[in-house]
Amino acid sequence: MTDFAADKSHPRYESLLKRHRLENAAKQGMLADSAMIAHGRGEAFDYLLGEQTTDFALKSTINAVGHLVNAKRPVICLNGNTTALVGYELMKVAEILNCPIEVNIFYRTEQRLNSIFDHLKGIKNKHSLQVELLGDTPDSLIPGLKGPRAKCCKKGIIDSDVILVPLEDGDRCEALVAMGKTVIVVDLNPLSRSAQMATITIVDEITRVANNMVELLETNNEIEIDIDFDNSLNLKNSLEFIANKFSNS
Amino acid sequence: MTDFAADKSHPRYESLLKRHRLENAAKQGMLADSAMIAHGRGEAFDYLLGEQTTDFALKSTINAVGHLVNAKRPVICLNGNTTALVGYELMKVAEILNCPIEVNIFYRTEQRLNSIFDHLKGIKNKHSLQVELLGDTPDSLIPGLKGPRAKCCKKGIIDSDVILVPLEDGDRCEALVAMGKTVIVVDLNPLSRSAQMATITIVDEITRVANNMVELLETNNEIEIDIDFDNSLNLKNSLEFIANKFSNS
Repeated sequence: MTDFAADKSHPRYESLLKRHRLENAAKQGMLADSAMIAHGRGEAFDYLLGEQTTDFALKSTINAVGHLVNAKRPVICLNGNTTALVGYELMKVAEILNCPIEVNIFYRTEQRLNSIFDHLKGIKNKHSLQVELLGDTPDSLIPGLKGPRAKCCKKGIIDSDVILVPLEDGDRCEALVAMGKTVIVVDLNPLSRSAQMATITIVDEITRVANNMVELLETNNEIEIDIDFDNSLNLKNSLEFIANKFSNS
Repeated sequence: MTDFAADKSHPRYESLLKRHRLENAAKQGMLADSAMIAHGRGEAFDYLLGEQTTDFALKSTINAVGHLVNAKRPVICLNGNTTALVGYELMKVAEILNCPIEVNIFYRTEQRLNSIFDHLKGIKNKHSLQVELLGDTPDSLIPGLKGPRAKCCKKGIIDSDVILVPLEDGDRCEALVAMGKTVIVVDLNPLSRSAQMATITIVDEITRVANNMVELLETNNEIEIDIDFDNSLNLKNSLEFIANKFSNS
């Protein structure tokens, strides 16, 4: 892994740091070919949000944390991009919640899976995190999905009641919702199928979300579920926010 | 270069073909590290346009062709992404216009430049195109730019009156406008600095634009400059179109 040399005062520091992490992850074989393109799509939508956590995104995040804290068996899923960008932060969240991490990738190859596990184990050891990593020996299938992307773990996804799956694809999000789970996604495009299908959609950039979650869990003793939360309204607010960005330009 | 295997009936055929071309270009060393991310940003904005050429984009394209046809010394600039995606189509446009192509890349290395030239020469030979390729031995500098990105050719950019620079960065677009040239950019983000700086901004996807230009030049004998063209209005129309996409969702 090469070091990141940019100065923190650089106006695009955060953006450059994310690219640097992804480029390193690509070199380590953690990413699918389409990962950089997907990141670029995210950059465009984040630009439309003004690269900030909106009020309604924070509200979604608090509600998501409320569901995770109050879950019987929460689980957090990671893929190549989320491992590269927020591997530490989401393992930290898992440690506080005392829940497992399940690595679950869309374009599944053993090489990519091993590379992601190596990366996560490195962070886990470095920070002495107490967290169980699942996904290297899947023993179950997500009903309704075909091929390698259906593979999952009984101890993780199958037995979970609340599942955090950032940057998830639409098919899998739909299949998880159909299993009756509370599905929390992080998606910058409020029009995407994942965003539309999920129980709770956090329309925000994943590193901001992961940092917000760590902060919420470390500073709040009790985070409740927001029983008035309406995901349709949340998505509508996101769409209006972006529309205003264009209308007022 | 690997072949592209997807079926033309695939609903995402065009999108997959573009990705395939870029992945091949990356393997050939034609692209900067950020090229795939830039393509992803474009995909997001094209999604907001409904992946179609809008009426105002076509109007901009016709006006752009009018300016190129009526120019004294037009020039078309290509970088890694445009070479990969529309190398053939824009060399065809250059042949019809009897103008040179100047390869001009932002992150300039000799290796990347050679790879782009190899690719273009391959297409040129295959289709027996009569077009002059400039840029491998730059002899001039664009005033106001620093470092390798200022390098250009007297016979190309410097002596041109009308310049087509698809997917151009904001600094260079601004510098070219400051030189008094008619600058035509293709940019899917109507809020980008290039889009805002250019004389004519075509808010459309580059392969559709290039195909439209070839068709316009092959089927129309006389294409005039649109003297009523207002780029601010053009950008405003683009913004409203995208805003409506969000408002009506």
